[in-house]
Amino acid sequence: MKEIDLNCDMGEGFGAWKMGRDAELMDFVSSVNVACGFHAGDPSVIRRTVKTAIEKGVAVGAHPGYPDLQGFGRRAMAISPEEVYDMVLYQVAALQGICLSLGGRLHHVKPHGALYNQAAADEKLSEAIARAVLDLDEKLILYGLSGSQLTSRAESVGLRSASEVFADRTYQPDGSLTSRKQPDALISSTDLAVEQVIGMVRNQKVKTLPGPEINLKAETICIHGDGENALDFARTIKRKLEENGIRIRAIF
Amino acid sequence: MKEIDLNCDMGEGFGAWKMGRDAELMDFVSSVNVACGFHAGDPSVIRRTVKTAIEKGVAVGAHPGYPDLQGFGRRAMAISPEEVYDMVLYQVAALQGICLSLGGRLHHVKPHGALYNQAAADEKLSEAIARAVLDLDEKLILYGLSGSQLTSRAESVGLRSASEVFADRTYQPDGSLTSRKQPDALISSTDLAVEQVIGMVRNQKVKTLPGPEINLKAETICIHGDGENALDFARTIKRKLEENGIRIRAIF
Amino acid sequence: MKEIDLNCDMGEGFGAWKMGRDAELMDFVSSVNVACGFHAGDPSVIRRTVKTAIEKGVAVGAHPGYPDLQGFGRRAMAISPEEVYDMVLYQVAALQGICLSLGGRLHHVKPHGALYNQAAADEKLSEAIARAVLDLDEKLILYGLSGSQLTSRAESVGLRSASEVFADRTYQPDGSLTSRKQPDALISSTDLAVEQVIGMVRNQKVKTLPGPEINLKAETICIHGDGENALDFARTIKRKLEENGIRIRAIF
Amino acid sequence: MKEIDLNCDMGEGFGAWKMGRDAELMDFVSSVNVACGFHAGDPSVIRRTVKTAIEKGVAVGAHPGYPDLQGFGRRAMAISPEEVYDMVLYQVAALQGICLSLGGRLHHVKPHGALYNQAAADEKLSEAIARAVLDLDEKLILYGLSGSQLTSRAESVGLRSASEVFADRTYQPDGSLTSRKQPDALISSTDLAVEQVIGMVRNQKVKTLPGPEINLKAETICIHGDGENALDFARTIKRKLEENGIRIRAIF
Repeated sequence: MKEIDLNCDMGEGFGAWKMGRDAELMDFVSSVNVACGFHAGDPSVIRRTVKTAIEKGVAVGAHPGYPDLQGFGRRAMAISPEEVYDMVLYQVAALQGICLSLGGRLHHVKPHGALYNQAAADEKLSEAIARAVLDLDEKLILYGLSGSQLTSRAESVGLRSASEVFADRTYQPDGSLTSRKQPDALISSTDLAVEQVIGMVRNQKVKTLPGPEINLKAETICIHGDGENALDFARTIKRKLEENGIRIRAIF
Repeated sequence: MKEIDLNCDMGEGFGAWKMGRDAELMDFVSSVNVACGFHAGDPSVIRRTVKTAIEKGVAVGAHPGYPDLQGFGRRAMAISPEEVYDMVLYQVAALQGICLSLGGRLHHVKPHGALYNQAAADEKLSEAIARAVLDLDEKLILYGLSGSQLTSRAESVGLRSASEVFADRTYQPDGSLTSRKQPDALISSTDLAVEQVIGMVRNQKVKTLPGPEINLKAETICIHGDGENALDFARTIKRKLEENGIRIRAIF
Repeated sequence: MKEIDLNCDMGEGFGAWKMGRDAELMDFVSSVNVACGFHAGDPSVIRRTVKTAIEKGVAVGAHPGYPDLQGFGRRAMAISPEEVYDMVLYQVAALQGICLSLGGRLHHVKPHGALYNQAAADEKLSEAIARAVLDLDEKLILYGLSGSQLTSRAESVGLRSASEVFADRTYQPDGSLTSRKQPDALISSTDLAVEQVIGMVRNQKVKTLPGPEINLKAETICIHGDGENALDFARTIKRKLEENGIRIRAIF
Repeated sequence: MKEIDLNCDMGEGFGAWKMGRDAELMDFVSSVNVACGFHAGDPSVIRRTVKTAIEKGVAVGAHPGYPDLQGFGRRAMAISPEEVYDMVLYQVAALQGICLSLGGRLHHVKPHGALYNQAAADEKLSEAIARAVLDLDEKLILYGLSGSQLTSRAESVGLRSASEVFADRTYQPDGSLTSRKQPDALISSTDLAVEQVIGMVRNQKVKTLPGPEINLKAETICIHGDGENALDFARTIKRKLEENGIRIRAIF
């Protein structure tokens, strides 16, 4: 039986500000990426989120980001690999300790937003991230864009990586995501998104926006937790995958 | 042979701002309390400080504080015990992971500034701090003001505590420190400070400002790292203690 | 014809986080208090909020708070009057400039959350706030709890003050609000809240929780913008006031 | 008699952290750029700095930067022109109000660090900055790198600009500064720096690193306030300029 991991970003509230329907979404995914306090999340939000994830049996990951609360970690920043190493180590360590205090254990790390995107194309940033994770705990899995520097650097330093694909984004022939500045970057039809996902899981291939099909390693699928119908989308994709004989399950 | 721990706050720079002569001071103390990023310290400062401490064989502690960078964690805040639990857990977990990544291990926790002072007199805050430390790692030692709620709560939840005394502060008959708003709160003479310390270590007693001598448990002495002559003071107190047959040594 | 000002806190989003239905609420109030970036609000949220308020003809106020984003400025802090002066001056100046750049002008200042509450009972804090506002622009009106140090200090330094009352809070015989920790602190019935407000506006009196009626100067009524039915409540209170011959109008 | 403005960045402390010998440096410069709280400076530091500058008769400028305290505003960030407009407006407005409250007036604006550098080459960022300044107060002067987008956009929107040159940096044939990543980016000899400055002021020309001399508009010279010998350098450059018949004077 085929298996695939469904992951979702969570714990993105901060103080009085709420974001996302975390607890409900956890019923449909197999792993969650918890914000670590730099781009979102505060210690109380983080602990509550990790507690709920452990109770629901979902694999817990750290989701470290740039120190940019106002920009939600989505603004590219020119930060040296050394500083990136330090800030990833700090954030992941905080999450790991919180997991342990609750009787759980940290399962993976997925960089957030601009850090994820910049690292995907930057060997040195990816190496810094991978080394920080490795130096903290060699059993952690590093999630990164399929075919990117992040997954290849993870493997080269000796970490297990997970190749991430997106349900609702279109792809280019070089394996990159179509830029959000382009039309057709997003797949708004749930049916088409589901179809793309099932194809990626079954065949490890994806039809690109210009037409040609390319190979694409798919080990974990990112579901977005924000937006009006995030919950519906998550429910549907889980159901459709299962109807197609694909089990939702975290990587172990 | 008598032994005593000398501790000092460290890692209090932030970004472009320097503070303290950490590396040099480490030659004179047996344990250091490293700022965790909320009142001072950033991930790079923290990692450098922990690295140096491990290289110099000094016991490393976490020094969690209030989330108040501008006030350096010295302004009292009305934060609930639940939130204090969460923010202490987060900060100590970050420090612990950084220690582990560098091949060391976290030795103790000492709350900083207003958190330390408020907890000393507040049973619920102290309990929250002690439980956060315990739930993370029951082998950690909790430093607190001698005779305070912090040390008694630590013991009652099952943690080892260390009773902290101050070399350069005067005491009141109830065992509290003379408020900094009073004259004679500080002992400016190094000779008198050394004399007070030696008396506390040898006899577990201190002469209070109004006159009477009181009992005072002394397991660790706090040395201030800021100020013009912090280095001279540290050197002198170490030498004088050793000349009086007292060895400087972390608690194990 | 009787007149009263209805005010509401606004501009409380931050970055990716939304809060409140500001634009809609502006149809029912005569003045708004815009968060200044320390406890909520960022430069873009602030400018958008001020722009909308000017377009809708609502009087714009600055709503300075403590530098505590996570606590939303609601946690009491021990900050010296000198520092409070500086942080109020900075925040109000920023708001004033933004108003001017949009062709409007700043109308009033209302301290937020814990700063408002602590100042109400603290003469020195209130004096610091009043002087900061005065030194920036002597034409600004300072909103404060009716009968508090804030309004009396405003008057004594030479500022115009506005005595604020609350529609949905109960009062004690000394004119203070019933603590939120007590039952019956809040008036959940819209009818009763409207009744209290109309009585306060007409008679400058309020029936206290224990029973006796007391005098209470009422120049501006605070409407809460958060909560499920904030919009309904605002609409109802405006309509009821007008039906009772009371016009909603900012103080000039 | 020739005249030139000497400017220096100031007010760069934050909370417990000090930076620079501001008061002393003010004896040698004619204008200061005061950090506005986003990359450095807090409300108390800012007010003290502005107060001293007004007392010493030095022209006061706002020095807005990116919201990046840890990076001191020196890390490039991908922030949209709209957001840059908002954050410059907010920061400059705060400074302007503080000046007014102290009986002074704001004289100029100089973007800081990465914002300055990115704007120099980016027409849209420069336009956003210039418009924010213009919309706040059309009498403000905008300092920017000589020959950059910042000065040309300032002029095109109707602001007065000041072309800034550097005493201790070498130039390239296209008028740009030699990158700090290159050797010979900095002029470490005070004599050579003074010689370069005098040449720039007298002839509006500079000898580039590769050899050829180029035209360079020089209206204000940036002096660095940090570093061991900043005070000596400032004193020397002022004396040498005066000995060469050039008066140090702010632009009016």
